[in-house]
Amino acid sequence: MPHTRTVRMSAWAVPGIPEIVSGNDLTVVIVAAVVSDSGDELSGGLQDGDILTVTSKIVSKAEGRSVQAADREQAITDETVRVVASRVNATGVTRIVENRLGLVMAAAGVDSSNTSDGTVLLLPLDPDATARQLCRALRERFGVRLGVVITDTVGRPWRMGQADIAIGAAGIRVLDDLRGTVDASGRPLAVSVTAVADEIAAATDLVKGKVGGLPVAVVRGLAHHVTELDAVGARSLVRIGADDMFHLGTKEAWLAGFDEANKRLARSHDTTFEED
Amino acid sequence: MPHTRTVRMSAWAVPGIPEIVSGNDLTVVIVAAVVSDSGDELSGGLQDGDILTVTSKIVSKAEGRSVQAADREQAITDETVRVVASRVNATGVTRIVENRLGLVMAAAGVDSSNTSDGTVLLLPLDPDATARQLCRALRERFGVRLGVVITDTVGRPWRMGQADIAIGAAGIRVLDDLRGTVDASGRPLAVSVTAVADEIAAATDLVKGKVGGLPVAVVRGLAHHVTELDAVGARSLVRIGADDMFHLGTKEAWLAGFDEANKRLARSHDTTFEED
Repeated sequence: MPHTRTVRMSAWAVPGIPEIVSGNDLTVVIVAAVVSDSGDELSGGLQDGDILTVTSKIVSKAEGRSVQAADREQAITDETVRVVASRVNATGVTRIVENRLGLVMAAAGVDSSNTSDGTVLLLPLDPDATARQLCRALRERFGVRLGVVITDTVGRPWRMGQADIAIGAAGIRVLDDLRGTVDASGRPLAVSVTAVADEIAAATDLVKGKVGGLPVAVVRGLAHHVTELDAVGARSLVRIGADDMFHLGTKEAWLAGFDEANKRLARSHDTTFEED
Repeated sequence: MPHTRTVRMSAWAVPGIPEIVSGNDLTVVIVAAVVSDSGDELSGGLQDGDILTVTSKIVSKAEGRSVQAADREQAITDETVRVVASRVNATGVTRIVENRLGLVMAAAGVDSSNTSDGTVLLLPLDPDATARQLCRALRERFGVRLGVVITDTVGRPWRMGQADIAIGAAGIRVLDDLRGTVDASGRPLAVSVTAVADEIAAATDLVKGKVGGLPVAVVRGLAHHVTELDAVGARSLVRIGADDMFHLGTKEAWLAGFDEANKRLARSHDTTFEED
């Protein structure tokens, strides 16, 4: 059987990223870690077509986005554009909300782990802008065409466990739109827009992990997804609005329907009374 | 800065998988492709700790799960346990349903691309069982401890594009439960069950692609997630029931609440009439 040329991807976490504090310049920190990595992979620094993924947590820390844990509920409220669903549980109320980045997340993405004692961490201010800034600086520093993805960890409806997604991106094709192309049998592909940036985020979560203090990873082998610097960012992965069939939780939507029926009933009574 | 030992993952698609037809023995086909792969990576066959991902489509084809395209709507109905949401669009009605595997998917997972002309393809009968069978056979054939994931492509609420998830798994830790462990600062991890099998599925979608006829991939470097053969399968990734805050689409839930209010109103009227 002939050997078909296939994509070979490798991914690894960059060791040596120190604890990030407010005001740190992430570009400087990441360049230092990349350059001092004694692993084989990075001996030549970053290469053309590499994609760097950065956990949002260190972007938030560098931006000084921590608030007192006592103010957590208020912080979630402040980050919330719209409550999608909420549920009372043993430790309080879980709120699934759309936040100011358009992301639908538990607790608006406010993070209570891996933060300094007594504080919680808000999501970065503008992860697409930060990705672009970081991407530009790293491209200049290493003289190569590379991409940057800023990741966060989310729960998903209907699936157990969490997975990483892209909340910021620059220099990569975040969505690979294959509509209009044909499959191996020559038939048009039906459902065929791949969420490349989310899949890259998920892939590198497998090498970064959650406990090892490894917030940065490199993916090599996906140069075909690396684009010009100002390609659309991760914001374009957000699907809210008319297309969103789940813009309210089941309980919330049910109650809204129930209330509406009662309201109409009340209005019809009012009308009747007025007519008397 | 000291060099920390980190996970290094690599992934590639196995070339040379022929078009699969009903009755094919996937183990035989995959072993043949792996053995004849002239790439460096597989020169030694599969290695200890490797994880193989297999697109559900070829499992379905081997199982003869194709039906006439004219019967597509009926096939979706037959695969459906529960309608979660539906929407009329330009080409008909999109139904998001829970299917017999517990998966919430558009069109119940019935697939219209990459299939023979005039047919559509149902999901495999029991992907966890198939994964276990394949995993056992490959472990015996290559004399190594490896894992198998059967993947499918799904849309997600609130996110554009599709990503691959695990619908079958054997020999791997599908969920990595880190609750009770501590983070780099010694604080307990708050949200910390990683959907490992879904992230592996997503990672290998990046090397398999949708158009190249590459339905099988290998991930190397995640041996720490490879377990005994009969570990729980991908079914354990399904979250439905009491935990599911999105068991109905917004429109459907709203209408259910609206109808319930009207029903109660009608009942209260009936009572009134009876009392007269």
